[in-house]
Amino acid sequence: MTLEYIDLKYKPKRTDLVAEYTLKPAKGVSLREACEAIAGESSIGTWTDIHTLTPKIAKKLKPHVFSIKGNTIQVAYNEELFETKNIPQVLSSIAGNIFGMKKLESLRLEDIEFTKKLVQSFKGPRFGIQGIRKMTKVKKRPLVGTIVKPKLGLSASKHAKVAYGSWIGGCDIVKDDENLTSMSFNKFRERIRKTLEARKKAEKKTNEVKIYMPNVTAETKEMLKRAYFVKTQGGRYVMIDIMTCGWSALQTLRNVNLGLVIHAHRAMHAALTRNKEHGISMLTIAKVARLIGVDQLHIGTIVGKMAGPAVEVGGIEGEMEESMIKEKGHVLEQKWYGLKPTFAVCSGGLHPGLVDKLMEKLGKNIIIQAGGGIHGHPKGTTAGAKAMRQAVDAIMKKQTLRQYAKKHVELKQALDEWGS
Amino acid sequence: MTLEYIDLKYKPKRTDLVAEYTLKPAKGVSLREACEAIAGESSIGTWTDIHTLTPKIAKKLKPHVFSIKGNTIQVAYNEELFETKNIPQVLSSIAGNIFGMKKLESLRLEDIEFTKKLVQSFKGPRFGIQGIRKMTKVKKRPLVGTIVKPKLGLSASKHAKVAYGSWIGGCDIVKDDENLTSMSFNKFRERIRKTLEARKKAEKKTNEVKIYMPNVTAETKEMLKRAYFVKTQGGRYVMIDIMTCGWSALQTLRNVNLGLVIHAHRAMHAALTRNKEHGISMLTIAKVARLIGVDQLHIGTIVGKMAGPAVEVGGIEGEMEESMIKEKGHVLEQKWYGLKPTFAVCSGGLHPGLVDKLMEKLGKNIIIQAGGGIHGHPKGTTAGAKAMRQAVDAIMKKQTLRQYAKKHVELKQALDEWGS
Repeated sequence: MTLEYIDLKYKPKRTDLVAEYTLKPAKGVSLREACEAIAGESSIGTWTDIHTLTPKIAKKLKPHVFSIKGNTIQVAYNEELFETKNIPQVLSSIAGNIFGMKKLESLRLEDIEFTKKLVQSFKGPRFGIQGIRKMTKVKKRPLVGTIVKPKLGLSASKHAKVAYGSWIGGCDIVKDDENLTSMSFNKFRERIRKTLEARKKAEKKTNEVKIYMPNVTAETKEMLKRAYFVKTQGGRYVMIDIMTCGWSALQTLRNVNLGLVIHAHRAMHAALTRNKEHGISMLTIAKVARLIGVDQLHIGTIVGKMAGPAVEVGGIEGEMEESMIKEKGHVLEQKWYGLKPTFAVCSGGLHPGLVDKLMEKLGKNIIIQAGGGIHGHPKGTTAGAKAMRQAVDAIMKKQTLRQYAKKHVELKQALDEWGS
Repeated sequence: MTLEYIDLKYKPKRTDLVAEYTLKPAKGVSLREACEAIAGESSIGTWTDIHTLTPKIAKKLKPHVFSIKGNTIQVAYNEELFETKNIPQVLSSIAGNIFGMKKLESLRLEDIEFTKKLVQSFKGPRFGIQGIRKMTKVKKRPLVGTIVKPKLGLSASKHAKVAYGSWIGGCDIVKDDENLTSMSFNKFRERIRKTLEARKKAEKKTNEVKIYMPNVTAETKEMLKRAYFVKTQGGRYVMIDIMTCGWSALQTLRNVNLGLVIHAHRAMHAALTRNKEHGISMLTIAKVARLIGVDQLHIGTIVGKMAGPAVEVGGIEGEMEESMIKEKGHVLEQKWYGLKPTFAVCSGGLHPGLVDKLMEKLGKNIIIQAGGGIHGHPKGTTAGAKAMRQAVDAIMKKQTLRQYAKKHVELKQALDEWGS
């Protein structure tokens, strides 16, 4: 039997997952034909009629392309097509083979709206924004973080020393860089031990709660071993490169439920997300990450060294923070059914002179991270951390950075170095 | 200190991992500047000078952009920048943040040449081509496989029935589709039990070795549970969607070393690999998959429903099969240091009428898989399997498909249905 998937009169049911795509058909292929191919290949179809597909199966499981606006289409899939608790399976269906089809010139998955049953099968963040604010005792202002720099090269001892310098300057958070795991010159266990010792000292000195985020990126079992080790050493956080480790391992890390906050770095995301005509949107990735349960996720900066327009970054932050957001542009509605919100992390080329613009765009519920923008301060790491914290304090006190810099020399030095 | 990474006189050392990229600088950015940004961000640099980067670290660890030809560059990285046994870490470095840099318009990772130390830290395939030929007792011809269709919708019993029909028609292999895991209408354990029972019967009837490849795609621990279950039920294979599960989980599956052949489906790869200007090449993904140790990997078809030009598909097959291949086009040399070769799987829109062209291009060391091209046969699944096996036999006997079809009715019906 030949199936037809386009039905513009179809109204999605509560039990339908909805995906939004933008596409370009290949030369000589009509938009209609391209839509039919996408809907079939992402669900129950193949390229030719087959004997094994009965009308009963087709009626129950065939998806419906119910909206076509320009090159943007929406497809409703019966949730029975998906396995609960299994992100890879969902993506293999609706973000799988279709990207490679000859009938398409290009395809981008813009958004997914998950059903209640699917959402509730995942854990979501264990801590989320409120849990992290409670843990750090930072109630209103953005959290300030740094990445130890250089990315690679420091010994475990030097790493701990740079971390200490950052904390006492005013950073709440110190994190490993995305490519720092267990290196010949800086072994994981030694680094964790020494850096967590330094954290204790910094907490004593500053009377503030300090956070260290060790990068546990590795093969799954090794990753879990490292996370357990962090736990036994008194750590509160782990960080993971979610894109290069992959969704199965991320689900595993969340499911073992060690009581550690999970910080998600998104290195490699832009290989998928950057091209506006082909790939997968960052919004989709952010939704999936919240569903699985990352407590913190990098979303870009609007300002800084990484690409990402304001409207996009803001949209992602909204999706991670709100319990439900209304359709705007291509953003599908998503109810989160009680899953906690994820804390948005802004990182990449930030320095104190950019804090005003950043907070103006994204508000106070963000984590501001700077590497070079702290360790590159003319007076070094501790001064850099002071400057960044001063910049945040300035905005919280409704002063301009330049006003506040009059009585705060480290901020002044930073603004003079990098501009404001 | 300011680092400079471009050094066209630099000769890569044996201890250097080499990566090849093609790039487009952003407007107003020179190629030189773009190269410097890539090399820094993928190793030890950041966007500004920092105090914590010492000359000693820089001398030891800074990478060298040693070749710039048009928009194609090669970068040599000291292997100390990478953790052995940790693919996610390697990718977070050289396929991480750089895709998102504002200084670039687009970036594509074309190839990686791994060092001996890195290669030898991975297991590679446990079986590889020779192991699979030994297991199946198929010495020279391509293996013939099918995917049970429709992708989703059949009950476990019907699934087993379709599998049985495929095997007795002549398929060596029956596999689950990429989005079939454990569904409400077809539970994993029931399907595996019933389909492996059907396999036994088919082996008895045909006196051939038959393979079933159950899809264990899931969160890592659940994936391993399912793989163990397959093992306890007498299965010989598992399949996994490597792109949606991710590299950490794939390494885990290989490392637990259950004695099961690992079949790698690449659903979602084209979101990364298809755009020739941005993303990651399929060649790179194939190399990484062989390194970790998949025994079989989908590589496309040249002919069929999925995109992939002949030169590209052939190049990937070469890299997976040869112990070492010489530079051709942008392909870097790779010594495999004894790691076994991966069996290339051709899948996507194939039918018997395409087998001659496929074997002409790719030879006999391939696995030919067809879903619609078997279950869509006018006389049904078993006839479809017969036709596909007949097509392979024809080419092995150096006859044309049409010649052979004169005495083989199922092949004739297939050729009449789909052309040849």
